[in-house]
Amino acid sequence: MSQAQVSDEDIFHGHERGKLSVAATRPIGEARDLSIAYTPGVAKVSRAIADDPALAARYTWADRLVAVVSDGTAVLGLGDIGARASLPVMEGKSVLFKTFAGLDSIPLVLETTDVDEIVETLVRLRPSFGAVNLEDVSAPRCFELEARLIEALDCPVMHDDQHGTAIVVLAALRGANRVLDRDVANQRVVISGAGAAGVACAKILRAAGVGDVTVLDSKGILHSGRDHLNPIKAELAEITNAEGLRGGIAEAMKGADAFIGLSSSSVDGELLATMTPDPIVFALSNPDPEVHPEVAARYAAVVATGRSDFPNQINNVLAFPGVFKGALDAGATAITENMKLAAADAIVSVAADSLAVDRIVPSPLDERVAPEVAAAVAKAAESDGVATTAVR
Amino acid sequence: MSQAQVSDEDIFHGHERGKLSVAATRPIGEARDLSIAYTPGVAKVSRAIADDPALAARYTWADRLVAVVSDGTAVLGLGDIGARASLPVMEGKSVLFKTFAGLDSIPLVLETTDVDEIVETLVRLRPSFGAVNLEDVSAPRCFELEARLIEALDCPVMHDDQHGTAIVVLAALRGANRVLDRDVANQRVVISGAGAAGVACAKILRAAGVGDVTVLDSKGILHSGRDHLNPIKAELAEITNAEGLRGGIAEAMKGADAFIGLSSSSVDGELLATMTPDPIVFALSNPDPEVHPEVAARYAAVVATGRSDFPNQINNVLAFPGVFKGALDAGATAITENMKLAAADAIVSVAADSLAVDRIVPSPLDERVAPEVAAAVAKAAESDGVATTAVR
Repeated sequence: MSQAQVSDEDIFHGHERGKLSVAATRPIGEARDLSIAYTPGVAKVSRAIADDPALAARYTWADRLVAVVSDGTAVLGLGDIGARASLPVMEGKSVLFKTFAGLDSIPLVLETTDVDEIVETLVRLRPSFGAVNLEDVSAPRCFELEARLIEALDCPVMHDDQHGTAIVVLAALRGANRVLDRDVANQRVVISGAGAAGVACAKILRAAGVGDVTVLDSKGILHSGRDHLNPIKAELAEITNAEGLRGGIAEAMKGADAFIGLSSSSVDGELLATMTPDPIVFALSNPDPEVHPEVAARYAAVVATGRSDFPNQINNVLAFPGVFKGALDAGATAITENMKLAAADAIVSVAADSLAVDRIVPSPLDERVAPEVAAAVAKAAESDGVATTAVR
Repeated sequence: MSQAQVSDEDIFHGHERGKLSVAATRPIGEARDLSIAYTPGVAKVSRAIADDPALAARYTWADRLVAVVSDGTAVLGLGDIGARASLPVMEGKSVLFKTFAGLDSIPLVLETTDVDEIVETLVRLRPSFGAVNLEDVSAPRCFELEARLIEALDCPVMHDDQHGTAIVVLAALRGANRVLDRDVANQRVVISGAGAAGVACAKILRAAGVGDVTVLDSKGILHSGRDHLNPIKAELAEITNAEGLRGGIAEAMKGADAFIGLSSSSVDGELLATMTPDPIVFALSNPDPEVHPEVAARYAAVVATGRSDFPNQINNVLAFPGVFKGALDAGATAITENMKLAAADAIVSVAADSLAVDRIVPSPLDERVAPEVAAAVAKAAESDGVATTAVR
């Protein structure tokens, strides 16, 4: 399905009055229903929860409700467009949570970009939800914000632009290498971009055993000798670039096995020619990939983008619905690194029997993915000791 | 339908996993749907809103979304049971908003009772919703909180325990007087209770032209000569008790035309005998009315309670769904006194053709009420100059 077939009229019509609605799970038809759902019946339920707060998990929706939270500072490729304008994206996220994982969620968009204030706001609202999907928050604030929320809240918190992307990229890299019969342990992967997605991708690739990772920001290759690195980049420099490369994109690409573009800076086809023969190229910038997939295909053995009108679409929707479902199914108090790695493995395993050069990950619409991811994530939560509910 | 027929098992079963769910208004079935609701399509909608914030009203759900907000300090008759335990009530409220007015709403319960912090939290979340139904906040904090929120937010804000109750009580008093062919302008009404509901009832009755109102708190009749009145009660003393009555319930009831119980303190039948002959008695405390309706009926011409198992149930659900629908239909920036008075009139008019001693207000399940209330409220918003949308 080509993106070109969707007209502006179709798009705006599809957002008219918003994309969400709240429904009652049980209809109110007669006085008896009212006596149960509202007064006087509801008083018994409230009193029971007051006596035993743990019962809120059973008798309210909050325990399984995902708050989709944004301050609108890094919305898609649009940048800092503000909370109000970010809302259609958050509503879309809620639609996907429901469609793929059956999870209820509510967008909460905040008219503050102050990390302290965002944390404080969510701490105050804590009894209203059961997990936080942080979305479209700009780097490097997003790193501090996520860490602070994980610290402050006893529930799953994940910044999807970081970890959702990282999980799917890892799955895709594994899928590509399986198709090509290569081993990631021997590879060097170039990541262009040290924002939310770039940082998380570099970390998960290292955690998953990728041989080496070279990260580029706007000033060139990250290395531990570079001046003025912020703490996030300094930490990244420690766990990447084992070869101590210096310079820019040309130095990074030379001899690399894979390229992952997460920065919207364009890459010449000629640079791809300097990589190892038949490399892997993920040009994930949206809507304009770093290199057009048809150009990349002249050099690369496997090409992926973020777009639905080319093969191998790398889309976060393969990860976040299942990750949150698994975490909530397990009553997880946090989302651990192993849960993320398990999610990536599960995505690969769904695609395993139909892997091909133009099919390194399942389709974003593949309904098998979220349940498989959820099961794997819940199991990993249990192994990691963060589960509070017995996993079937 | 008797309340006794609902078992605890029925009640708890009716709250299992909560009473709300979030649905997508348009299904995601194919890649094209994903391209519209999420990337890349949604970027066009977000950009349009960034360029013209007013478009959020058209292309997000927030503009018509009611935040049902509580800090859990005065939940039903249970008192300060906390935010978490209040959630089943707030979910119930959302169910009623949907059932009677078709409005989407989300419960936001706050783990703080600090007025500044609650205001600050909702100001930060402002782009996430279109109206605030404040619920179950203890007096006198509720008066300051509501006033501060009205000041801080450019959208409809209403503390339902105050004004929802007041609107329905006024409608019921009008209904009773119409049945009895009496004129409220000549009457003195005793209100027992100077909490959220008592204060708002006293004010709306005075605004609606009730001759005189005598308000009792736990220390007796409010009068302007009493020491240590808080500002709310001092203000109330100015607009009530024209006769300058002093003393307690006995002094208040003597010769009164109507009694409205909003305090859960019990009232002897003998006190009712001291009122004018055939008075009006609303014993609204729940689940235990101030005086049993069968006892009250020995003295009174009209008796009402808050209970569904006696005639004349005074229930806020007759007001709040229609009030918020009307306010949102009109794009109202506030809920004015005239909008509340119009709501009461609309409730009476729905019951007009079937008014009787045991039917002074419509049934809480009467589906005609909310649309009538909404239309009247929207019209009043326009008259008062707070509407931003043309009312049909």
